[in-house]
Order: sequence, then structure tokens, then C-alpha cells
Amino acid sequence: MAQQSALEYIRGGQTPFFRLPQVDPTRGEAAGHDAVFLGVTFDAGTTYQPGARFAPYHLRRLSALVQSWHPVHGIDVFDRVKAADGGNVAFPPFDPPAMREAVQRDVAIVLEGGAAPFVVGGDHSVALPVLRALHAKHGPVAVVHVDAHLDTSSPEVWGAAYHHGTPFRHALEEGLVERGALVQIGLRGPWDRSGDRDLSVAHEARCYTAEDVARLGMRTVSLDVRDRLHGKPVYVSFDIDAVDPAFAPRTGTPVPGGLTSMEALQLLRGLAGVQLVAMDLVEVCPPLDHADLTSLLGAHLLFEGLALLGMRRFG
Amino acid sequence: MAQQSALEYIRGGQTPFFRLPQVDPTRGEAAGHDAVFLGVTFDAGTTYQPGARFAPYHLRRLSALVQSWHPVHGIDVFDRVKAADGGNVAFPPFDPPAMREAVQRDVAIVLEGGAAPFVVGGDHSVALPVLRALHAKHGPVAVVHVDAHLDTSSPEVWGAAYHHGTPFRHALEEGLVERGALVQIGLRGPWDRSGDRDLSVAHEARCYTAEDVARLGMRTVSLDVRDRLHGKPVYVSFDIDAVDPAFAPRTGTPVPGGLTSMEALQLLRGLAGVQLVAMDLVEVCPPLDHADLTSLLGAHLLFEGLALLGMRRFG
Amino acid sequence: MAQQSALEYIRGGQTPFFRLPQVDPTRGEAAGHDAVFLGVTFDAGTTYQPGARFAPYHLRRLSALVQSWHPVHGIDVFDRVKAADGGNVAFPPFDPPAMREAVQRDVAIVLEGGAAPFVVGGDHSVALPVLRALHAKHGPVAVVHVDAHLDTSSPEVWGAAYHHGTPFRHALEEGLVERGALVQIGLRGPWDRSGDRDLSVAHEARCYTAEDVARLGMRTVSLDVRDRLHGKPVYVSFDIDAVDPAFAPRTGTPVPGGLTSMEALQLLRGLAGVQLVAMDLVEVCPPLDHADLTSLLGAHLLFEGLALLGMRRFG
Amino acid sequence: MAQQSALEYIRGGQTPFFRLPQVDPTRGEAAGHDAVFLGVTFDAGTTYQPGARFAPYHLRRLSALVQSWHPVHGIDVFDRVKAADGGNVAFPPFDPPAMREAVQRDVAIVLEGGAAPFVVGGDHSVALPVLRALHAKHGPVAVVHVDAHLDTSSPEVWGAAYHHGTPFRHALEEGLVERGALVQIGLRGPWDRSGDRDLSVAHEARCYTAEDVARLGMRTVSLDVRDRLHGKPVYVSFDIDAVDPAFAPRTGTPVPGGLTSMEALQLLRGLAGVQLVAMDLVEVCPPLDHADLTSLLGAHLLFEGLALLGMRRFG
Amino acid sequence: MAQQSALEYIRGGQTPFFRLPQVDPTRGEAAGHDAVFLGVTFDAGTTYQPGARFAPYHLRRLSALVQSWHPVHGIDVFDRVKAADGGNVAFPPFDPPAMREAVQRDVAIVLEGGAAPFVVGGDHSVALPVLRALHAKHGPVAVVHVDAHLDTSSPEVWGAAYHHGTPFRHALEEGLVERGALVQIGLRGPWDRSGDRDLSVAHEARCYTAEDVARLGMRTVSLDVRDRLHGKPVYVSFDIDAVDPAFAPRTGTPVPGGLTSMEALQLLRGLAGVQLVAMDLVEVCPPLDHADLTSLLGAHLLFEGLALLGMRRFG
Amino acid sequence: MAQQSALEYIRGGQTPFFRLPQVDPTRGEAAGHDAVFLGVTFDAGTTYQPGARFAPYHLRRLSALVQSWHPVHGIDVFDRVKAADGGNVAFPPFDPPAMREAVQRDVAIVLEGGAAPFVVGGDHSVALPVLRALHAKHGPVAVVHVDAHLDTSSPEVWGAAYHHGTPFRHALEEGLVERGALVQIGLRGPWDRSGDRDLSVAHEARCYTAEDVARLGMRTVSLDVRDRLHGKPVYVSFDIDAVDPAFAPRTGTPVPGGLTSMEALQLLRGLAGVQLVAMDLVEVCPPLDHADLTSLLGAHLLFEGLALLGMRRFG
Repeated sequence: MAQQSALEYIRGGQTPFFRLPQVDPTRGEAAGHDAVFLGVTFDAGTTYQPGARFAPYHLRRLSALVQSWHPVHGIDVFDRVKAADGGNVAFPPFDPPAMREAVQRDVAIVLEGGAAPFVVGGDHSVALPVLRALHAKHGPVAVVHVDAHLDTSSPEVWGAAYHHGTPFRHALEEGLVERGALVQIGLRGPWDRSGDRDLSVAHEARCYTAEDVARLGMRTVSLDVRDRLHGKPVYVSFDIDAVDPAFAPRTGTPVPGGLTSMEALQLLRGLAGVQLVAMDLVEVCPPLDHADLTSLLGAHLLFEGLALLGMRRFG
Repeated sequence: MAQQSALEYIRGGQTPFFRLPQVDPTRGEAAGHDAVFLGVTFDAGTTYQPGARFAPYHLRRLSALVQSWHPVHGIDVFDRVKAADGGNVAFPPFDPPAMREAVQRDVAIVLEGGAAPFVVGGDHSVALPVLRALHAKHGPVAVVHVDAHLDTSSPEVWGAAYHHGTPFRHALEEGLVERGALVQIGLRGPWDRSGDRDLSVAHEARCYTAEDVARLGMRTVSLDVRDRLHGKPVYVSFDIDAVDPAFAPRTGTPVPGGLTSMEALQLLRGLAGVQLVAMDLVEVCPPLDHADLTSLLGAHLLFEGLALLGMRRFG
Repeated sequence: MAQQSALEYIRGGQTPFFRLPQVDPTRGEAAGHDAVFLGVTFDAGTTYQPGARFAPYHLRRLSALVQSWHPVHGIDVFDRVKAADGGNVAFPPFDPPAMREAVQRDVAIVLEGGAAPFVVGGDHSVALPVLRALHAKHGPVAVVHVDAHLDTSSPEVWGAAYHHGTPFRHALEEGLVERGALVQIGLRGPWDRSGDRDLSVAHEARCYTAEDVARLGMRTVSLDVRDRLHGKPVYVSFDIDAVDPAFAPRTGTPVPGGLTSMEALQLLRGLAGVQLVAMDLVEVCPPLDHADLTSLLGAHLLFEGLALLGMRRFG
Repeated sequence: MAQQSALEYIRGGQTPFFRLPQVDPTRGEAAGHDAVFLGVTFDAGTTYQPGARFAPYHLRRLSALVQSWHPVHGIDVFDRVKAADGGNVAFPPFDPPAMREAVQRDVAIVLEGGAAPFVVGGDHSVALPVLRALHAKHGPVAVVHVDAHLDTSSPEVWGAAYHHGTPFRHALEEGLVERGALVQIGLRGPWDRSGDRDLSVAHEARCYTAEDVARLGMRTVSLDVRDRLHGKPVYVSFDIDAVDPAFAPRTGTPVPGGLTSMEALQLLRGLAGVQLVAMDLVEVCPPLDHADLTSLLGAHLLFEGLALLGMRRFG
Repeated sequence: MAQQSALEYIRGGQTPFFRLPQVDPTRGEAAGHDAVFLGVTFDAGTTYQPGARFAPYHLRRLSALVQSWHPVHGIDVFDRVKAADGGNVAFPPFDPPAMREAVQRDVAIVLEGGAAPFVVGGDHSVALPVLRALHAKHGPVAVVHVDAHLDTSSPEVWGAAYHHGTPFRHALEEGLVERGALVQIGLRGPWDRSGDRDLSVAHEARCYTAEDVARLGMRTVSLDVRDRLHGKPVYVSFDIDAVDPAFAPRTGTPVPGGLTSMEALQLLRGLAGVQLVAMDLVEVCPPLDHADLTSLLGAHLLFEGLALLGMRRFG
Repeated sequence: MAQQSALEYIRGGQTPFFRLPQVDPTRGEAAGHDAVFLGVTFDAGTTYQPGARFAPYHLRRLSALVQSWHPVHGIDVFDRVKAADGGNVAFPPFDPPAMREAVQRDVAIVLEGGAAPFVVGGDHSVALPVLRALHAKHGPVAVVHVDAHLDTSSPEVWGAAYHHGTPFRHALEEGLVERGALVQIGLRGPWDRSGDRDLSVAHEARCYTAEDVARLGMRTVSLDVRDRLHGKPVYVSFDIDAVDPAFAPRTGTPVPGGLTSMEALQLLRGLAGVQLVAMDLVEVCPPLDHADLTSLLGAHLLFEGLALLGMRRFG
């Protein structure tokens, strides 16, 4: 079996993602896998509530509850997708540039091994080095950016160029994302000022606000996205704050009026068929979670990402 | 008045279900009632998060907030339905077989007295002895099984035949449920393996997954169920984990993507007209609840069950 | 800028509503503003869970996260609406009549200055003196009363004429609300007895229960309300318990099956065009909140109220 | 047995204090008992954190964990002391004068029946009517007042004569306490102003601050108190905030630097031999308690009070 | 280095006890070690608050914060003591006899390999199979039993012979503990009945109640214990409920008036020189812990146990 | 009055430290004051649990509960000490060097105005720029460093020179502290390695471990410290983790076995007579606090610091 059984897992005493085998990508062990998880214990880019540094730990813990058969897609995910836990990215803390270098390097190693990196933040700062590594391999990629925020903030707002509100500003400016192939889902307000979306608009991004999702229905949205990105290498960057705080209460900068957990799951299920090349899940802030709501949902969203690999490679 | 007033209730200093009179069914005091509540302080069948042993206590406490007039059905529930608090079932703890015997015995006593037992778990293990007692009186019954899980797990999974993941395996194998009269609502994944539903399918069960409910709407689903079970004695077995963790966060094995509180209420309201013979509410895990969300919703669901009695007997 | 920037706000070390300037209405400083916030630290009218006395404090704190641009209305709210924090109403505590006098007096002062009072409770008892002050200026007003409860309870229930369950009984009996211009949204049961709505019905109130909202959709409801109240001076009295406990868990008397956060936001957005003359937000109970869910949603609802001013005055 | 066994208690489904029988003092059922518990669900006199209204409920719940044999005194408390749960005092809420009348009346009834009232608040406002009832029977009594605060605040501070900071001002002014027979233990600062202790000093009260206790040791203090009050009728008024917030975190107005739980227990044990005529335990604020620390300690303190009865009557 | 550095530990992504290497004792990997940790995820013997099944997980997590140099003993613990994480004991859950067999078997394997087992419960039920395995190797052992309770309860109390209140009854009756070599520390009341200590007394056990510790000082107590047990093989069985709930709030059956964290540490430090052959730490109940207080203290207590090995083997 | 009354404070709606006036030191408003509070919302130097960025906010909130009369010293603190809230230090976040510059600059401004800065962190990183500013005015100062940790960690441990574990390494290496005039109180283990204290020892620091305090008594310790530092300008740097987690649960890196709240208060009271020139209180981590224990104790410790000013200037 690809996953340990419940008793085997208890016996081991450790908490690998989804009860999976552990590999060390820096020793070439990513090769031969379809997906490798990498944690990034970093929250020094958080403007409001820190704590996302602990998310890899808690998402590992909660992911043990997720089993293998996907009743909607009708596939056994861990049979189809050879996945492993690649540990965390290591870097000198208190040093954001070092984080960006280390994440880019380790993601590149996983990509070289032929596996899709599943990067578990940490705050949204981690998305920029992932995109840089993806660009090095694939050129500009398509991005499904699920988020309450645009994350294209300008340096003036906080007096700093790099933090969890700016990864997509850099990504767009650095040409890491294919023009017209950025989709942003879950956005809602209020914003800082009227021009906040100018950069996305200039990049011909497609935006589905939370209000749009409520009006159109998520299945419609997700099929639109799937069709728009058909045949492109797709990076799913999932900021848990896209989901309403009732369903995902603990995150760095929560905003009411977001997606339901059902809509978040529907979104990823509706993407079946896209060519997923990487995924991140960011901004889960476990120290303040209650009932593990945020971490448990995050674990299920990562499972849906793995299922997309399973649907693609064998569909 | 059937319920104590607020001041009478405060004066008493105790917490009977719904501010109702207390009876001791083992002394024949269930007779003359339409419904009798029985708590079962048992969670030794829990695979993940224990604590449901405290649910009868907290559901009593929160049920005091629930008043008598049902504005959707337009009836005064506690005028129509003569209900009482029958205390808890007593059994030597650490002894699951003793629990099953004691629950079956006390439920039988309540049934003999002509009342519908409202069994408040405890984990879902308590449903099997309830079904055995119902079968002894009614023969195979119809079951509305509301749950995120199938609860037909095989003994191999945890190396044990009886726990909170197996009651419906035993119930189906023992012939306690009428073929074709099992309805399962709220199921969602992932599952352990592809064949998990084989037993239910073989029994011609009707399944509405959480995705089905989202697509069809709960009112449609509940009317379908009502029509399907018309004229049969119906047991509603309500595992609170059918509801999304945002609305019912504390339960033994939570799964994201579940029913909303509104859908849960709509389901029971839509069953008006069925011949309810018993109800359970299980898997509320109060020690870890926040804002009493899970217990408060559970109390309202029990009220909806009582209202079904009121609609049936006088409708 | 109307709001302090993030760094200016941090520098100040205080928590004025929405990072706004502070004024003292009792010194005539409300004049020249469109809206002035007044906190009322009062929960002595609470029947179940006290704590709303701390809501002004926490709503100030969370409102700092709310920015200025409203992407749905397409306006910069704090540019359009000159708003200020008027501090709290002061009164000898343990003395409910003194609270009512002080609130009525301070609200009247704000109204005299030409600003719309935004009253942040506190429990729902605070609505009665607000209505009295409004009546003194406008005569009978229209009211959008968003609530799980009718708040027209009779004195017999708790042996007291004034508490958080009675403000609209007094308001209707005192003629403060225009006949036919009371709209109640979010009501759900169970109630105390069948006649609980008699007073509202006699006043030709329009009621949209939570079930009605689920069936009709909130956009339909809010447009109906907008049209019904066209041209009248409107008071929005928003009891946070109208929202489901999953989205607003901490409040004096929670009831499952309520509005979603999206619906609550949609309701206020759909009222764009009404002549808002005052708003309250009551029954947020922060000491027991988790993840600040209730306070954060409350802050966004107050923002939507300000936006209504912006849409009206410049639309 | 005086207490129900664990299984009998579970069977009953209710939570009488210490698993004791229930009586209704207003029907003369206090007669023949040594001690009768009365809950007072009142917190309208709280200046900071309300919630003590729920303390009778939670102290009942936690007291079930307390067994009968006192290993330090070497007595079986519930064999020696015939105790019962007398329910709560009923009064129209939102009406502090009504609370005072009702408590005084019910305490008088218990005293007439020959039992010592054990009054479980509620905030410290409840002590005044208890003292009035005691005075009616015994004349001026001795008082062991355990508290972080003096509770002799003047009306000017909050603009009100009666609240949880004033009961001993009224008691001293009304002559309810014997001159020289007031002992205050646990006091610590800071105070409002230098003259705060003038009233106590004028009454020749003996004060042991928290610093005194740390320096002298609690055993020394308690023996001093016992000797000082020898032969007098003694009322123990125990405000849980005398205990450090680490041991009793949830209370209306916490102050760091207080007694340890061991010291609090030692104090009451050291009083063995005094003629206890009544006890209160006040200011437990359960809604915000964690790990039930405050309520559990409170239940043990009430048990120590009962043990004092046992030591007196049979010693 | 015996421990992973902070960055190595983060890199690994897993949580072995004290950042130690992992071994599988069932494959003979315990050999060559001084100490091997074994988790036991079992709480089916809990009478009140379950959840100790999660303690091995959380104690692993918190133990990562504990470094190697012991400033009181002046030794580098992980240099001196070759320790490893042996994972958890595996057994079919819901089957207490299977737990006892599996724990006895795995502890025996560790003992055969020459290492001291450090058993991390789980509830106190796990101590009995540990003692059985120790007896098989060493004959009757000395026991330092740190606990608020005697744990020699008779089967009648709960109608069951084996649960967390009975391990020392069985141990004494089975002759697993040397007469006169049982020391019980931390006991406090109230008890069920006067004869509860008869079995311990008959076994010539030495008891230091919490009151004794407060009077004598823990250093005196611990040196007495050390001298009494000189030269004997010693098993330390540490129930975290010996510590006051302020310092160790989450445990199955808390009792106020217990040891401070400083006293708990002093106790183990004072035992330096005893011949420790095994240790357990039980009854940590992490799901309800706040600020990880209980788990963090537990991790430090386990470290003190390891230090005892270091002091013995090299002292 | 120096403090606002309770009603004035409520009226204002804001939360200045200790209900004090607000000043802006950057506009010269510190002049004429004895003490000025400065918050530093910085936790980017935290190795384990972030969140101290919110401490200035919560310490302001809780400090409102602290009144003016100090019953141990017998002085009215806010009459004697002219104190004000100077807001927070502003700096571009995500930029630790900018924090250090801004804190040094603002502390220098306060010192120039003749006031003692009371710096409220934030993590312990903030102490270094305070010491640099003090050195610029006073030359090497005496330091009372209250902490569980030495905070002289070397850069190798985390691969970074500046974080919350290194301020005293830099301070000693930069000559900011007078040789022989560093006192460290509360230290406890375990440490990273045996040589961790070498730097302090070389600087002739005096160390009182937590064990020393337990043995000697805090009054003895504090009088020793007072005498040792007689006549020197003294900086008190108080890391709340010196206090045991039971009394101060939420902090970046908690360690069991620490000071009690009484000992922490006694320490500062015992220093009466020293020439206090500045104080910090750091490492309070409010987002995870329960019952505000840590923040409330922190507020009282700041009050004790102000009282030291009062005792000095007028003693």
C-alpha cells in the first residue's frame, strides 16, 4: 500500500504527510515520484497574525486522517500518484532572502527529479521562489491563484519589497506567469485603493471575486478555469484565506465573506484534466486554530491537488 | 406548561433536557409519554478524538435554550409531544459489551412504554443496540442515516469488530434494517478503498453524498426521502459529523465539505409526515467545542426530531 | 487620507474605529461629519451570555484591518464619508435607565451635528434610546431589523420591562417606527409561543425568516427591502445573532440556522440607495470569541453601513 | 451512602452539588440538614468581566468529582454532615434589589431549618443579603473575608451604591459584622487611593495581605484566625480572586500575586474548630475558564467548608 | 551530536523525542542504547477526561525544545546517555488486554537490549504491563510513584478490574513491587473512603502527601527517597496529576493543591544516584491543554529521568 | 488626577497605558515627564512562538485595571511619577535593522526629555537598541536581566547574529554594560552546551538561577541585587519567561520551573532605592494567552517599575 495503515502509522510514531514514505530530495530521492511534499516553516513576511511557520507540522498531523479513495473522481489517489514527504526546506531563519534561495533550490531539485512539488507554507512569500523555479524549467506558467487578496501590493504600503502581500507583483514583473494565464479566485474587499487591480488587469488576469463565485456557482467557475488553462503547465497557489473564516478561521489576514469548504473542494475537483506542475498551500496559522478546522481543510485541499495529478496522468 | 419557564428552570438548579420533567424508565415511568430521552455516556468506540461521553451532559445544558413553538411547522412542540428526560443508561464502563446490553435493554423499556426513544450518544457505537431493540419490536426498520461516513467498516481496519465505524455493518448483516429502506445522507470522502460502499449497495441503500445535496438542494433530498420511507417505521440516526466542521466543529472524526446547519435543519423539517419511531444524535464531542456550536446545533436537531413526532401524531 | 496608514496607526498606539480621527461629540466636534461612531459598553440586559460590554473595544481593534476601497460599489468609502470615532457613551453602570438616557442624549448630539450615529453595542437594549433620539429628529422612522429574534418579548417572560429581548416592543408601542416600515430579517425559531409575532404583524412589519432568505436568495430580499423603504429615513439595527453561529459564534443568545457572512454582506450592499440615518451593531460578545470571527465580521458590517452613506450622498 | 456512587450519579443524568440529594428549602425541606447549597445566578454587579451567573451550574458539575473522605482531617465528610442541594435562588433578573431580597429570604429559610447555608455566587454582591439574614438570626457575626480586594468601595467610584465592590461597606455600616471580628485575607494591590482601608481599620478588622501570607505562612495565619474567632458564629466569604490567577484564572477582577491553591486549602483546614454558620464562594467566572481550573478549585473549597462543619459538630 | 541541531530537526520534518535518532526495538535496534522511548496511545482506562492517547505525539513535539546541557547536574545528558525514539507500541485498539500484552512485550524487548524503557502514556493503565516486564527481568522492583491518587482502587468502584485507577492494586497483589520499596508522592484528597490506603500500608509503602511535601520541602523528601531506595532497581512512575492543575492543567482526573513545577523537577533531580531501570510519564491529556503547559512540563520531566541515567552511569 | 477615572477612561474609548495621557515624543512632548511608555510591535527575532508584536496593544488594555496606590510601598504612584503613553515606535516591518535604529532613536529622544523610557516589546531583540541609547547618555549601565535564558547565544546556533537569543551577547561585546554590574535572575535549564555562560562569567555577571531563588528566597535575592547596584544607573530588562508558564503561559520560548508571580513582584519591590533609568518588558505573546494571565502580570510588573521611580525620586 502506498499509505501506511492506521496501525503501522501509530507504530511509527512520526507524522509524514498522508502517512507516506519519507524521502530526502537533496539526496536525489525525489526521482521516481509523481509528487513530493516540501514544508516551508516561514512566517516572517506576515503583516498581521504570524504563526504559519507551524503549518507544515500541523498539516502533516491532520493529513494522517485523509484516506486514499476519492469517491467523486473514482480513483485511488495514492495508488495512482507516487507521493512522498520530502521534509522541510532548511534555511537560516530571520533571513528572508535565504528562504527564497533555499525554496527555489529545493523546488528545482524536486522538479529535476520529475516530481510535482507540493509546497506547504508558511506565508504566501514562499510562492515567489516556487514560481522562479517553475519558470526555470517550464518558462512562464499558468497560475490558479486562490486568495482573498491580490497579493500584488506595492513596496510603499509597508516600506518593504518582499512580504506576503507582494509575491504576485514580483512574479508578474519578472515574467514568471504567462500573460492571460493568471486566474484569481476568491478576491474580496475592501482594498487599499482603487488601483490595486491595475497590475493584474494589465496582465490580462481573469478574476472571480467571492461575489462572482456566489453568483455563478463554483462548478461553473472551475470549468471555465479548466478550459482557459487547457494544455498549459498550471501552478495552483492556494492561500487558505480565500475560504471564509468560519471554515478556515486561522490565517494571517482573514476576511469575511469567503468561499465555503465545499466550494474550495469543488474548485479543485473541477480542474480535473489540467496539467498540474506544482501546488502550494499557504497561510494556515495553526497556533490559533480551533478544532483544527484550518489545518484539516488544508490537508483535504492538498489531497485534491494530488488527485488532480492522478486524474491527469491516468485520465 | 410542558416546559419549565426560565425562572422555574433556574430555580431548580438542574439541567433536564429541554426543561422537561424527569422520569426513570426502569421504574415504568416512560409509560404515557410520546418521547423519552436517554443519554449514553460512552466513547470507547472512538477511533480518533474521544470525549463524546460528555455529550448528554452538554446537550441537556444547551437544550434549555430551545423554546416550544416551531414557526416553520406552526406547532407548539412540547404541547403536542409529551416528552421527558429519562436520565442516562448505566453500565460498567470500560466494558463495551455491557454498554450494548444496557442500551438495548433501556431502549426496549422505553419502547414498551409506548414512547419513542431519543438516544443521545456517545459515539456511534450506541446505534447498534438501539437498532436491535427496535427490531425486536418492529422487525426491520427504515433508517435515515445522516453521516459523513458509511459506518460499515470491516473488522480488519482496526482489528476490532465493534467500534464507532461499524454499527451499520452489523445492523445490515443482522437484518435489522429493511432492504431498500436505508438512506445515507452527507457521505463524503475520501474513503479507505473503492469497495467501501459495497455492503450498502448490496442492501439497496439510497445514498445522497454531500455533493449530491449541494447539487440537488436539501429540500429536494428530504422530500425524496420522506416519500421513499412513507408508512414505514423510521429510525433517524444523526451523526453530527454529517454537518461541516464550521457548523459542528467538535466530533470524533471531522471531515470538511459537509452540510450547513440550515441544510441539517431542512432535512429533518422536510421529513414531516414520516412515522418516526426513534432517533439518536451521536458524536458530539463537547470538551473541545468552542462557543458550544456543536452542542447547540445538536439540541436544535433533537428538537426537530420531537417536532416530527408532533407533526405525525396530530398532522 | 481619511484613514491613517498602517504605519501611522501603529505609531499612534491607539485603536480608533477604522483608523479614523477621534472627536468628542459632547464638545460639538461631531459637526461637519457624515458619520460618528459611539460605543455603548453595556450588557446588563443580556438574558444568557454577557460580555457585549467589551464589543466596542474589540470592534475598534478589528476595524483597523478594514481598508477604504469598496470593490463592489466602486467607491473609496473614507474619502466619500467623513467619519470619526466619537468614543463611548458614559453612564453610571449597574443603572440601565441611566444608560438609556445617556445614549439618547449622545445620539441626539450627533444627530444635531448632522452626522449619522453608528452605535456599537452592547446588547440590543441600546436600540431603544437610539430610536427615541431618531424619533425626536425625524418622527417615526423605517427600520431594517436584522436579528434571529423578534425582540418584542413581553415583560412577563423575565419579570422585567427592559432588557435585550424587548427594545422593539417599546419602540412599536411608543410609535417610534413608521407603520409598515419595519422589516425583520433573519428570524428563526423556535419561539416562546405562537403569538410572539402578533405585535409585529399588527404593525404591518415585513418579515423575512432565515428560511425565506435561503429560499429567495438574499439579493432578492435586499432589493425588496430597498424598494419598500425608498425615500424614508432608515435605521439599520443589526443584531449579529442574525448570522449563523458558525460565522458569528459569540453573541448573547445564539441560534443555529442563520445567515452566512456572505448573505449578511449582500444584505447591506443591496440596500444601496436607501437614506440611512443611523445604524447599530449589537450583541457581539468578544470575550468568548474565537479567531475574532464575530468582531471581524461586525467590523465589516459597519463598513458596509458607512458605504451606504457613501452611495447615498454621492450616488 | 450520603453521596450517590459514580454509576448512580451517571444514571441520574443531573448534576446536584457533590452528588447530594436535592431539596426545596421553600417547601421546608431544609429542615434536618446540616448544610444546604443555594446557587445565585447573578453577575449584574460585576465591574469588569461578567459571567459569574454560570458558576452555580459549573460548580455543581465539577463538585461531582469530589469524594467523601478527608485525609487531612480524617473524617468522612458526607457521613458526618447531612448536606443537600437546595437549587438556586429565583428572582426577576435585571433587578438587583430583587436579588438581594430573594437571597436574604431564602438564606433565612435555610437558617430557620437549622442548616448552614452554602451560597454559591454569582458575584460578591450576594454576600450582603446573606449577612443581613445571618444578622437577623445571630446578631453581628464574625467574618473571614478571603479576597484580593477590600470590597468596601464607596459609591462615588462607579456612581452606584450596590455592586460587587461594596458589600462589606454596607455590612460594616449596617452593623452586620462584629467589631474586631472581621478578618480579611489575600488583599493585595494596587488600590484606588490611600484611604481605601480606613473603613476596615475603623472597624478594627485584621488584615493579612498576600505578602503577609507569603511571609508568615498560611498555617500560622489560619491558626491566628481560628483563635481570634473562637466561639463566635463565623461566616466565611470566599472570593476566588484571593487565589492567584494561575490557580483560579477566571474571575471578575483578577489580580496577580495571590494565594496558591495549597494555601487556600490550608486556610480552610486550619480553621477547624470554628463555629461556621454560613459560607459563600463567589466570583468564579466559568465561561472563560480553562481546564475548569477555577470551578474545580471552587468545588474543593466548598468541600473544605463542609468539612469545617464536620469537624465542629463532632470534634 | 546526539541531538539534531535546530536546523537539522526542521529539515527532517518529523518529531522524534528530543530530536533523537529513531529505532525499531522489534527489529533489535534497541541494543546498544541506554534509553529507548516508547509511546502508548491508550486512554480507554480513563474514568473522567479521555485524550491521553495523543500524549506521545505532543510530548514528542514539545521535547524538541529541550536542549542537552543540564546546568544543575552539570552534565551533557545526550552525550552521556545514548537514547533513541522507539516509536509507539502497536495493538488493536478497543482491546485493553491486547494493550497490556503488547506493552509488556515491547518493554521486555527494550530491556533485553539493555536499555531503560521510557514509556510515555497514555493513561496510567500502561504502568501494569511495564511492571510485569520489569519483574520478569529484575524480580520485585522499587517504585517511585508520583501521583495525586493511590491507584489501588478496587474493582467494585467502577465495576471493572483494569483501568487507570487500579494498576498498583494489581502490581502489589501480583508481587511486582518489593515490600517496603514503594514510595508514593503527591497524594492528596479527598478519597473515596477511609480504607483506601490499606493496601499500600500493608505493603509498607512510604507516602508523602502533597501536604507533607509543602511542610518538609521537596529536597528533603527526595533525599529521603533516594536513601530509602539506595541500590535497588527503581521504576519511576510519574502521573502528571501529581502536579497542581495550575502547572499541569490537562490530565484525566485533576486535583487542586498539588506539586509546583519546581517541586516536580526538584524531586527527580534529588534522586540522582538511584539505579533507574525504567520510567513512565502518564496522564498528560493534550487535546485540552492550553499553552502546551502540561506537555512541556512532561517533556522536561522525561529529560530529568534521562539525566538520572546520566548521573548514575557516570557518577 | 494623573490617571483617568474609570468612567473617563470608558468615555474616551481608547486604551492608553494605565489610563495615562498620551504624548508624542518625536514632537518633544516627553519633556517634563518622569516616565514615557514606548511600544515596540516586533517579533521577527523569535525562534519559536511569534506573536509578541501584539503585546503593546494588550498590555495597554490590561494596564487599565491597575490603580494608583501602592500598598506595600505606601505611595500613590501616578501622583509621584508623571508618566505618559508615548505610542509605539514606527519602522518599516520585515526589516530588523530598521527596528533597531528606530528604537534607539526614540529611546534617545525620551532620555533627552529627561524621562525614563518604559519599553514594551516585542521580543527581546528590542533590548539591544535600548542599551545602545542608554550607553550614549549614561555610558555603561547596570542591568537587572530577568529571564529564563542567558540571551548570549552565538550566531552559529541559528545562523544569524541578531535575534531574541542574542541581545546580551552584543551588549557585552559592545561594552554597553558595566563589568560586574550585570545581574541575571531566573535562569534555568537545560542549555545548549556547557559553555553557554562563559561570556557572562567573563563579564563578572551575578547569576541567580531559578533554583537559587527557590533556595534563598526572593527577598534575599532582591536586597542583594539592590545593594550590589547601589548608586549605579540601572536598566531592568524583564523577559516574562523568567516567570513560570503557570503564571505567564504565553511567551516565545517557555521553560517550566520558573518564578512565581509573587516572586516576580517581590523582586521589583525589593529593588526600591535603585536608580532606575529605563525598563523593558518583553516576550509577552498575547494572541495565545488564556485569561490574559501573561498580559495582566506584565502590566503589574510595569507598575512596579514605575513605583521604583516613585520610591527613588521622593524616597
